[in-house]
This record gives sequence, structure tokens and C-alpha cells, in this order.
Amino acid sequence: MTLRIYFSAPAADWPEYGPHLTSAFAEAGIAAELSPELGDPAKVDYIVYAPNPDLTDFTPFTRCKAVLSLWAGVERIVTDPTLTQPLCRMVDPGMTESMVEYVTGHVLRHHLGMDTHILGKDGVWRHDSKPPLARERPVAMLGLGQLGQACAASLRALRFPVLGWSRTAKDIAGVECHAGESGLRAVLSRAQIAVLLMPLTEGTRDLMNADRLALMPKGAVIVNPGRGPLIDDAALLAALDSGQIGHATLDVFRTEPLPPDHRFWSHPRVTVTPHIAADTKAVTATRVIAENIRRAEAAEPLLHLVDRQRGY
Amino acid sequence: MTLRIYFSAPAADWPEYGPHLTSAFAEAGIAAELSPELGDPAKVDYIVYAPNPDLTDFTPFTRCKAVLSLWAGVERIVTDPTLTQPLCRMVDPGMTESMVEYVTGHVLRHHLGMDTHILGKDGVWRHDSKPPLARERPVAMLGLGQLGQACAASLRALRFPVLGWSRTAKDIAGVECHAGESGLRAVLSRAQIAVLLMPLTEGTRDLMNADRLALMPKGAVIVNPGRGPLIDDAALLAALDSGQIGHATLDVFRTEPLPPDHRFWSHPRVTVTPHIAADTKAVTATRVIAENIRRAEAAEPLLHLVDRQRGY
Repeated sequence: MTLRIYFSAPAADWPEYGPHLTSAFAEAGIAAELSPELGDPAKVDYIVYAPNPDLTDFTPFTRCKAVLSLWAGVERIVTDPTLTQPLCRMVDPGMTESMVEYVTGHVLRHHLGMDTHILGKDGVWRHDSKPPLARERPVAMLGLGQLGQACAASLRALRFPVLGWSRTAKDIAGVECHAGESGLRAVLSRAQIAVLLMPLTEGTRDLMNADRLALMPKGAVIVNPGRGPLIDDAALLAALDSGQIGHATLDVFRTEPLPPDHRFWSHPRVTVTPHIAADTKAVTATRVIAENIRRAEAAEPLLHLVDRQRGY
Repeated sequence: MTLRIYFSAPAADWPEYGPHLTSAFAEAGIAAELSPELGDPAKVDYIVYAPNPDLTDFTPFTRCKAVLSLWAGVERIVTDPTLTQPLCRMVDPGMTESMVEYVTGHVLRHHLGMDTHILGKDGVWRHDSKPPLARERPVAMLGLGQLGQACAASLRALRFPVLGWSRTAKDIAGVECHAGESGLRAVLSRAQIAVLLMPLTEGTRDLMNADRLALMPKGAVIVNPGRGPLIDDAALLAALDSGQIGHATLDVFRTEPLPPDHRFWSHPRVTVTPHIAADTKAVTATRVIAENIRRAEAAEPLLHLVDRQRGY
């Protein structure tokens, strides 16, 4: 039987994803009719989804067995009351590799003080300003999901002491794990660099507020490739102005593209990257989508099923 | 019996190394009289050495059982005809860690295109300029000694394909190893980033000359934390001017400190770091010195003994 699969994502994604999905379905032995055109919603078996203005009501998709997100973050859809079908997040091995490269690279950049050499080409030989070894530079990993754990492992391989924090307590080899509010205080008070990789939930919105930023050692660095609203922007700007926070490297923002007149662009202690840390790679992500459809058809458990209460 | 150990290095090193050497000798059970003052050269048992103008003739050290270098590179001393005693290079675990951090950090910096974001804060959201995955970015490791192998392993952990080159053929897990002139051509013609970690010998001086630089893919990047004279500076500047080489990050130079009016400082495609990639860490290096003295006294083979013909 041929499955009807509706590709509901920004039109610009179709030329890249259409061919890869077709290949992935063929590899997985799935007979599928894939289309970015809706047709009759009552006949759709699966929805491949990324946020777009055309799909705001899931009620008519009465036959739909699962909504398969192309994005790792599902905060825009998880609270949608019309969505009663199972929802799966994207956990893409290519995305994880990309995130590990970004996080490891920017942590090393700040650890080594590279900006001094990249920006300050003044002919002055500052041989005495050597960084400590990574083993002497504690890094906080806030969020210990798939991405956070992969980044923590990469930093551990370079001997950075990694202080992990997550909503529920975890036990990860080589990582000093903490949970809860007191755990967060313990982690932030010691970390010279903090990496934000939590999902966005009501519990994590504005997590990095003025109080939390003030807990960190003076001159600490924030790296946020997670979600923009994890940070209270005004509090961060104030902490940067005072020098409490030495630098912030930000990849995600409350409004994207970040408006050209936003202070983050002009602030000397901020580096803006345009949401490039990690995104879904069609070649690897489409195989995850195909595998989940195969599982659903075989009545096997779905991969990366979202807990709607928890929010991710 | 108390051993007489002469600390022959720049005077500025003594305050840092003196106490660490004393501790390391005590830990190793070595009764030593350590001094930066020479006294009678015929009574010296061991010389702890870094290049300095006071010691230019090793002939009077008739009793000396070994010269123990504080530096990894021994090119300034290895051809000294007065040096007939065994010479040991420094292989310091702290130095290796520091080098791995520098190389991994700067390779990731160039891979991720960080400079665009650090320097070009113009308010333009360039979401489409995403780097490939590390697995798609071949990196050449020229030199596969202790430091080169450690750096290659770190880059492999991030999935960079590593093309290794060394004087004599080596077999290293995960690294595509090449040797000889044809091997060098094969490596350079494919590498988008080349890291220089060879010892300086007559065979490696000016290794990166105009011909070799021209072999690389257009826009390739050079990272040199090895030795300044491995590169023909004029050829590199010409290749940077033409865009054949996209960027050079240089930590070592023919003249150090690099003179303030040198073109490397002002060239937009050059990053100068002031010989900070890796240097000897007193706490770890002095233990290596003590272990070698213990070995010599016990008639065990010395660690990191220099092959005088080979030059390292």
C-alpha cells in the first residue's frame, strides 16, 4: 500500500529535502507518495514538518499516524491543542556533529583568547599572555540531552573539566552532573565558560537572568547555540556592559534574523553567528524520518517521541 | 652521592624552574645540588639546558653524563661539534596538551569560518554561509612525531579526515599516512588546512616554498605552530597576496619577537600568535628531567634521546 506523506515546511526546503526523502524511503522499502501539496488532509498518513504558516490546525488530519519534525526544537508546535497525533523531534547525527564542532570550536576560541590575536594586530609581541591548560578551565554544559552529551564528551576529550546541569539528575561518565536550582548555582559559580543547550520550555525561558549571570566568575563567557529565549537579553547586555560577563557568542535569538540595529551586533563583547551552529542535514535527517515511518508501520516504538507534558 | 646539576638556561627561567626541579628531584629520590651558577665544569654531572649565550662550548664538561633540553626543538644545539654528551629533547605532557588545544582550536576556527563573525559585525544575517561537516574537510598534518600524532588524534575525534606526512613512513590508526616527496605532493594537493609540526632540519627548512604552496587547493589555510623556517616567508606572502593561500595562522617566526613592521602583522590574511601554542610547563617538564637522571644513574635507557644524525 502506498503511504501518502505531506511535506509541510517552508517552500525553500522542498528542493533539498524532496529528493533525499524519496531516496530514504526507497532505501527503507517504503512505498510513498510524497508531496508538498496538501490535497485531502483526511488521506494523509504522515506529516514531515517544519514550522510554516500554511499548517496551523492539525484537526483535519484524521488518518495521520505521526508528525515528524525536521527540527530538534519543537517548542512552536508542542503546545498546539489541535495536535493530537504523536510528535517526533529530529535527532540527526549530522546535526550533532555540526553542534559538536561549533561548541568545541568556540569554547577553544574563548579558552585560547584567539580574539586578541585576530582583532589586535598591533605589532606588540605579548608572549606572556599564555592561557592555562584546558584541564584548568571549568566549562558548564547546561542541558545534557543528545547534543549536550555529545558536546560534553568532545570537551572532555580535550580535558576541560565539564560541569553538567539538567532538569532531572543524570549520571554521565567524566561529567560532574548537577540538577535543580541548587545544582544550577553550584555549576554557574564555578564555570568560566557556559554553553546553553537546553530545550526551550516554560522552565528554561529566561534561565540566564540577572541573578544567574551574577553567580558566574567575573569575566565568564556565555556560548548559546540552544534557543534565544533561554537568555534575558537585557540582563545579558547589562552584565556585558559591567564586565561581569566577558563575552557572549550567540547563535540564536528571540527574533531571527537578528535586526540590524540590535545592540548584539554592535556590542564589542558579543559575537553574533546567524543560526549556523547546527541544522538538519537532509542526507542524514531524511533517513531518520524514513526509519520512523518504517517503525510506525511495523508497530514498533517511534524514535525521539516528544513527551507533550515535558515539552521535548 | 650528591649529583651536581647545572641549570644552563636564560636567567628568567630560573625562578620558575628552580623550585619545580628541586621538588621533582626530591620526588624521584635524587640527591642533587642544583645551581644556575657554573662553578667547575669538570664537576658537573648533568646539564639542564635551554639556549642561552653563556654556554657555547661543552668541551669542559668532562664528567657530564647527559644534556637535558627544556625545549622540544633542539636545532640550535644538535649540530654543535663540542657537544659529545648524550642529548635528550623535552617531551612534556603539558606541552602536548597545550599544542593539541592550539591546533584543534585554530583548525576549527578556520573550518567554521569564525573570523567572518568575529570581524564582520555588519548586521547582515548570512544564514546561507554554513560550513560543511568536519568529515568533509581534509586536514594535512605535516610531521607525525609526539605532537603531530596527538594533534591528529584530536582532529580525528572530530571526524576531520587527516592526511599525515612524515620523513619516514608511519602507520597510525585513522590517519592516511604518506612519506617522501611524492607523498608530500599527494597530501598538499588535497588538504584544505595544513598544520606544520615537523622538526627543523636541513630537510625541512623552507619546506613550504612557492612550489609546495601552489600544490594546495586555492584558498587553503596554513597553521604553523612548529618552527618559523619551515616556511619560505616571501613565498607565503606572495601566495597570500594572490589568494592561493586563504589564510596563515603563524605562531613561530624566523625572528622572534616578530618585528613590529613585519608584513605578517599587517597582512589581512595572516594571524600572528606570539609563540604561545605550546611551551614547556615547569610542573610536568621537571618530572621528565628527574626521570631521565634517575634512568641515567640506574644505567637504564634515556627517554627522548636525540639521534644526532637525524637532528631530533
